[in-house]
Amino acid sequence: MIKVGIIGASGYAGAELYRLLLGHKDVNIIAISSQSYEGKMISDLYPSFYGRFDMMLTNDQEVLENAEMIFASLPHGLSEKYAKVCDEKGKKFIDLGADFRLDHEKDYQQWYLHDYQYPDLHEKQVYGLSEVNREQIKKATIIGNPGCYPTSITLGLYPLLKHHIQKDEKIIIDSKSGTTGAGKSLTEDTHFPKCNESFHPYKIASHRHTPEIEQELSKMAHQNIEVVFTPHLLPVNRGIISTIYVSLKDSVSWEAVYDIYQKTYQDEYFVRVLPTGKVADLKFVQYSNFCDISLHYDARYHQLIIVSTIDNMVKGAAGQAIQNMNLMYDLDEKEGLMMIPASF
Amino acid sequence: MIKVGIIGASGYAGAELYRLLLGHKDVNIIAISSQSYEGKMISDLYPSFYGRFDMMLTNDQEVLENAEMIFASLPHGLSEKYAKVCDEKGKKFIDLGADFRLDHEKDYQQWYLHDYQYPDLHEKQVYGLSEVNREQIKKATIIGNPGCYPTSITLGLYPLLKHHIQKDEKIIIDSKSGTTGAGKSLTEDTHFPKCNESFHPYKIASHRHTPEIEQELSKMAHQNIEVVFTPHLLPVNRGIISTIYVSLKDSVSWEAVYDIYQKTYQDEYFVRVLPTGKVADLKFVQYSNFCDISLHYDARYHQLIIVSTIDNMVKGAAGQAIQNMNLMYDLDEKEGLMMIPASF
Amino acid sequence: MIKVGIIGASGYAGAELYRLLLGHKDVNIIAISSQSYEGKMISDLYPSFYGRFDMMLTNDQEVLENAEMIFASLPHGLSEKYAKVCDEKGKKFIDLGADFRLDHEKDYQQWYLHDYQYPDLHEKQVYGLSEVNREQIKKATIIGNPGCYPTSITLGLYPLLKHHIQKDEKIIIDSKSGTTGAGKSLTEDTHFPKCNESFHPYKIASHRHTPEIEQELSKMAHQNIEVVFTPHLLPVNRGIISTIYVSLKDSVSWEAVYDIYQKTYQDEYFVRVLPTGKVADLKFVQYSNFCDISLHYDARYHQLIIVSTIDNMVKGAAGQAIQNMNLMYDLDEKEGLMMIPASF
Amino acid sequence: MIKVGIIGASGYAGAELYRLLLGHKDVNIIAISSQSYEGKMISDLYPSFYGRFDMMLTNDQEVLENAEMIFASLPHGLSEKYAKVCDEKGKKFIDLGADFRLDHEKDYQQWYLHDYQYPDLHEKQVYGLSEVNREQIKKATIIGNPGCYPTSITLGLYPLLKHHIQKDEKIIIDSKSGTTGAGKSLTEDTHFPKCNESFHPYKIASHRHTPEIEQELSKMAHQNIEVVFTPHLLPVNRGIISTIYVSLKDSVSWEAVYDIYQKTYQDEYFVRVLPTGKVADLKFVQYSNFCDISLHYDARYHQLIIVSTIDNMVKGAAGQAIQNMNLMYDLDEKEGLMMIPASF
Repeated sequence: MIKVGIIGASGYAGAELYRLLLGHKDVNIIAISSQSYEGKMISDLYPSFYGRFDMMLTNDQEVLENAEMIFASLPHGLSEKYAKVCDEKGKKFIDLGADFRLDHEKDYQQWYLHDYQYPDLHEKQVYGLSEVNREQIKKATIIGNPGCYPTSITLGLYPLLKHHIQKDEKIIIDSKSGTTGAGKSLTEDTHFPKCNESFHPYKIASHRHTPEIEQELSKMAHQNIEVVFTPHLLPVNRGIISTIYVSLKDSVSWEAVYDIYQKTYQDEYFVRVLPTGKVADLKFVQYSNFCDISLHYDARYHQLIIVSTIDNMVKGAAGQAIQNMNLMYDLDEKEGLMMIPASF
Repeated sequence: MIKVGIIGASGYAGAELYRLLLGHKDVNIIAISSQSYEGKMISDLYPSFYGRFDMMLTNDQEVLENAEMIFASLPHGLSEKYAKVCDEKGKKFIDLGADFRLDHEKDYQQWYLHDYQYPDLHEKQVYGLSEVNREQIKKATIIGNPGCYPTSITLGLYPLLKHHIQKDEKIIIDSKSGTTGAGKSLTEDTHFPKCNESFHPYKIASHRHTPEIEQELSKMAHQNIEVVFTPHLLPVNRGIISTIYVSLKDSVSWEAVYDIYQKTYQDEYFVRVLPTGKVADLKFVQYSNFCDISLHYDARYHQLIIVSTIDNMVKGAAGQAIQNMNLMYDLDEKEGLMMIPASF
Repeated sequence: MIKVGIIGASGYAGAELYRLLLGHKDVNIIAISSQSYEGKMISDLYPSFYGRFDMMLTNDQEVLENAEMIFASLPHGLSEKYAKVCDEKGKKFIDLGADFRLDHEKDYQQWYLHDYQYPDLHEKQVYGLSEVNREQIKKATIIGNPGCYPTSITLGLYPLLKHHIQKDEKIIIDSKSGTTGAGKSLTEDTHFPKCNESFHPYKIASHRHTPEIEQELSKMAHQNIEVVFTPHLLPVNRGIISTIYVSLKDSVSWEAVYDIYQKTYQDEYFVRVLPTGKVADLKFVQYSNFCDISLHYDARYHQLIIVSTIDNMVKGAAGQAIQNMNLMYDLDEKEGLMMIPASF
Repeated sequence: MIKVGIIGASGYAGAELYRLLLGHKDVNIIAISSQSYEGKMISDLYPSFYGRFDMMLTNDQEVLENAEMIFASLPHGLSEKYAKVCDEKGKKFIDLGADFRLDHEKDYQQWYLHDYQYPDLHEKQVYGLSEVNREQIKKATIIGNPGCYPTSITLGLYPLLKHHIQKDEKIIIDSKSGTTGAGKSLTEDTHFPKCNESFHPYKIASHRHTPEIEQELSKMAHQNIEVVFTPHLLPVNRGIISTIYVSLKDSVSWEAVYDIYQKTYQDEYFVRVLPTGKVADLKFVQYSNFCDISLHYDARYHQLIIVSTIDNMVKGAAGQAIQNMNLMYDLDEKEGLMMIPASF
């Protein structure tokens, strides 16, 4: 049994982690911590666990000492020191925050306004997009678990960029996220009377996932890729859907594009390329680790419209983190993650 | 034109007041105030007003000096001093809070844990249930505007109690309210990811509307009436629906009961007794000043089930306040309040 | 591995059955059938299964022949003939519909307007309320799986009635159900623009679950129990919450009542009696097999208010059916049903 | 008083028309018709009108004979014959359907698969985008009232295209609509258990509003404009929001763009250009005739992101139709349309 610990276990991503890990047959949750809620029971924060997972939130030190596999779900700037400890003690570390996602400190400085405290540590980080970086993840000790928006976008564009069939450097991405993406903290925007029956974009041209998206897409394409990225807040609880607009190279046919997508993902359990004519819907991935992709073609302009959808809390956070842990421990990648969504 | 002012204009009830008053042909909104947001524009708080009602929130003194008709929408314990000023200056005062609803100081002390500061003032207060107390309201200068739950309940029970056809002293009331009833302040319960797809009762057997409900029902019945009152939080924005359980006297037939309701409200524009077989639904009163009542009969136990529904922000707050103002100024009672709800 | 088949597999309860059974380690889904959709793939009806459970809907005969454990989810009046076949062939049969719930044919005739075709068969039926009838279920071959409303209500009242601490014969029950309870068929009431932001009771004093509720409550109490039962339609997908009003016997204290509930359910995994002061919320049972019960006391009238909540598709249908199957096959009762709900 | 009639009054647009017209001081609703529901009362279809607008749905002939101003809200292909009659009798006709929106019969044939029956009639048609075509509308007798998506899009792009400051011919438009846009007919997609907590695009690259959008944008720009248009279904009742992506000409600054928008709409009551930094939200236009536009700039790519939002049933249908009627009758353009949305 893997001794798992979670630092920053009071937030939504943390709670989703142990909710899913409770169904994982090879895991023992040893300790979970929270600076703000130390001493509180999980069920004080999340009553659904009452009587069935009555663990007390402890301090970070407890987690670091007793677990061998540490997940951290913290605001940016706080993970490095824990990764450092893990690195020194030979423990595995998966960061669900933003501290180990960017390859270049200057990007981190520009978008997160922080310096790296331990630059050497970042040499070891692997970007945990499971389907794309599987082999590196298996050998990694420090994982930067992808952001929710980047996961839906990079999986949606990977086959295309890998095969260099897009026409332009610039890609337009219109994403929509459920409210759990905004987290547990109370805000005006997630106050029910405001949020319900509402819809609007936010952080237009300024969302912090932008450099992560551009970095990963550029690596996939082996060329510079730029995105105009507009996230929106959907009045639902879970799910991200990204509608992605790409002009296709003249030399590639729509049929060939579909074929490329099919082949790229045909052996992946968690990525489903839908049959042509079907449309991806966040309804059909909620509470699962699936990424559903549907492809649409505007023949008038040789334009591809990619629709990519995930559950932001699962494939976009805790689920992918567990998938990465499974890879790191050479377990069945699907263990603990095989739930199929309801369609209603 | 009536010079209207609103004290406590930053909350939902205040905002609903000026939203509705902007469509009232005899009203001039002179000043609106807020202690927390003085100096802010209305549209900073409520962007829907942007460019169309760009008034600045001022201080309470401005309102008291310049308006002749003052509405107050404040937490309990804060209205009395303003009512006192209005009383001295001969201005009309409608309190949307709880300070002028209870007839006996001891009830106020027990449920709100406050004393009256100006007991004499309360001799003048009239309970602003427009349809029931119309004549007193016309002559009143201080109105205690009814609470949202009490409005749906007292209108739903008025014909029954007035005609003494209930069997027992005790009435069971199961009420459900939309989230605007919880107000503008951020809470865990109205955080979208929690509130959405959720439903639960709250303040069971302890809601502060209880003494107001029992007081008014007892006056209607000319006897002591007690209620077991359970409010629930509905994941919708607007509307209250009360399901009320009453055992009927053996001597009264179901047909007679329905007839009594019909006759009681036949000349009321804002109260609609639905045909038998139809069911009241908060959908069909939202954004209107209507109270819809449907009656249902369980022949097996000679039991009446009354369903009474209102928009909590309109008939349950701002709308009824304007209706009362219309009565106090001898205007058409319906002025500014004739909007018909959409059914979709 | 148990060879399971499902008749009537196109509806919501059927879909929830195989969704859950796919995570059951001792089950093999052999065949599923639908008269209306024979020849269709599951994912044509429920796209969430696409590529991961691509079974074709076959005819009922296939199911009856190849499965040893048959679930039926059919409109009333259609299950008997399948139960008959199973009975003759020595197969186990769990009916998620209404045909095997009522003890007396006259009740079935009165409320469902049908006669029994095979009266003898009903001698063998066991009411599948797992926690209450566990021992009979273990030995049963024909189970009438409880209705969703009755499950929430009977579990909520069981400790009380078993200990005869209610004062009256008549109990008032105000229930609220999510829309999946209305099923897959399109209706005006579940058309989104109507249903969203709506709330209303329906089938007041005439819902077909009434005789089932009264029958089971009376058996628990060893006396006649009558209910005034009002179901409401909630604008959420899943969950039932019942608010139940009971006058307590003078001789019993509130503390004793709470103690009785605690003790009755202390060894039950799926029934959780919440600590006093906490309130049951359908949010905290969604997508799980839990029944959460909170107890509230109105000291002024020695009145108990019981709040009982389940997921209507799980504990109220497919989950309890699987729990019953586990009992019938002497498996761990919790197998396949241990998922813990998210609180967001 | 204008004698108004509505043909096709049973659908949502029809119902919204008389809901709004009931608050219009210069209008008398003479007759309303429906082929499917002739003889039914309005409140049978829309219970919110019960007792307050109890008109019976009659036949189309009644409307044509007795009204002077006829609105039609019909499936495409059915309006022409009514327009013909009106034309002959000198009555005014506003079509809320698609039959009088396209300038060229070949577009109508291609997208709607119908021929014109009375080609001459289309010489007289005016596209009823009130703010843009005000002078022609004043003199028109046949109005093609704009579609909901086209209204949000054309108003959002008008200042830009009029001033020729876009770089490319091709514009990407990602639109999201509430469910009332799908109408009153029951569909799988608007079945509550499916639609709630769901989100997905539909009719990608094939929506029938496409030719209307391109036609009007091209006229505004005096050059060919093409759109990649992706509509999505939002789980809310009302509102459309279009996120529009345009590359700006190098020679124009962001400040100049904002200035152009401000100036274009500064005298328009119903179009609000929000201050920079604010984001348009469908919440703040619901139940009103406003179109809110916010502008956003991605400096990295000199890219403009326009967010344009309306209530699809008001400015996107019935409200704009009334605005056009006001223009045709030389009334205050705002009469009957001055309601301000709630922000909650």
